[in-house]
Amino acid sequence: MTDSQKHIIGLVVYPGMTALDIVGPQTVFSSLPGVELHRIWKTLDPIKTDDGMMIVPDTTFDNCPPLDVICVGGGIGQMKVVDDPQVLDFVHKQGSTAKFVTSVCGGSEFLAKAGLLQGYRAATHWMTREQLTSLGVEVGCERVVIDGNRMTGGGVTTGIDFGLTIAEMLCGEEAAKIAQLLIEYDPAPPFDVGSPEKAGPELVQKAMSYAAGTLGLIVD
Amino acid sequence: MTDSQKHIIGLVVYPGMTALDIVGPQTVFSSLPGVELHRIWKTLDPIKTDDGMMIVPDTTFDNCPPLDVICVGGGIGQMKVVDDPQVLDFVHKQGSTAKFVTSVCGGSEFLAKAGLLQGYRAATHWMTREQLTSLGVEVGCERVVIDGNRMTGGGVTTGIDFGLTIAEMLCGEEAAKIAQLLIEYDPAPPFDVGSPEKAGPELVQKAMSYAAGTLGLIVD
Repeated sequence: MTDSQKHIIGLVVYPGMTALDIVGPQTVFSSLPGVELHRIWKTLDPIKTDDGMMIVPDTTFDNCPPLDVICVGGGIGQMKVVDDPQVLDFVHKQGSTAKFVTSVCGGSEFLAKAGLLQGYRAATHWMTREQLTSLGVEVGCERVVIDGNRMTGGGVTTGIDFGLTIAEMLCGEEAAKIAQLLIEYDPAPPFDVGSPEKAGPELVQKAMSYAAGTLGLIVD
Repeated sequence: MTDSQKHIIGLVVYPGMTALDIVGPQTVFSSLPGVELHRIWKTLDPIKTDDGMMIVPDTTFDNCPPLDVICVGGGIGQMKVVDDPQVLDFVHKQGSTAKFVTSVCGGSEFLAKAGLLQGYRAATHWMTREQLTSLGVEVGCERVVIDGNRMTGGGVTTGIDFGLTIAEMLCGEEAAKIAQLLIEYDPAPPFDVGSPEKAGPELVQKAMSYAAGTLGLIVD
């Protein structure tokens, strides 16, 4: 694969998704040469993300071209969408022919329920690792897990690391490095608590209580 | 300030902005207790970001409540908006009473042109440091620059570090740490080229040529 190719990348959007799950990779992809981006849903009606932002899809399931990369994100509202046969049919159909079948955060549950992750290792948000395991997927705790043409990221912000990783595969190392520099991705988190392993059990428990209470997150 | 307070946070959105500039902080803010978020523009008509995504504002300049935090992002299309008197009036008015006057990426140019950054140190995207200097602002190359109640981030992805930094000020250290854990912000960039200092002059030159050519970025 070289940077002279055109890459058709589809980001599935849906009500209750986390905006950053797809905006992270989108930012990387739009900094690459030759990328055609689609934000895809059943209709072109606006959808509201779990952080309250309204996004207007630009492509429907019905008029979506064959994708080179399909990417599904997660979100607090994903449990209302993840068993929808129309959604799973679309993900299955596109995932069966795409060069890369990908997800960020809880989006791996869509891939698993569409039958695309069984027999593969995959990542998900740390809070949903057991859930993904129960779907017959071997869960990896790395930030980005690559297994064959399946590439999955952990929670929310992993989408940027994921985006840059796949950028190198699609467009080469130099294009990926230019993208990283253009988006000034030299992260400096103020705390060292970005994974459950680093945060420790007390903060993990508090985060889970907060997510279940204030944010209304329900993990099956 | 404690976590029992309500914090009204406004994110200015506009055509040609970079989505991640506001979606980064938005993701942090929506993980905090007691935050009311507004995405603000002249009208409620959808705007298209510089990466092609359509966002629907939920608040107009006219019906926006007094903000505790105003945040303006940058974008490839900002030069078409940054001298608009209606925009600068809104930023100036809200910025004059807000507890925190903030920006991500090239958004600091809006603050400067609204007269809110003269006499302060501030950050911006590395590609627009000279531009900001020319507006009478002392430019800092840190990822997040805090000077009084002015808090400004560098390019694009700094919005997440910025968001977590202000989260601690608004809601306390524990709430900020929980937010960081919930969004799994334990970044692992694939390359060490996320700032011009780390990337070196050759990659910087390539990135600037690419931005000017393929992305159509015009820096005044």
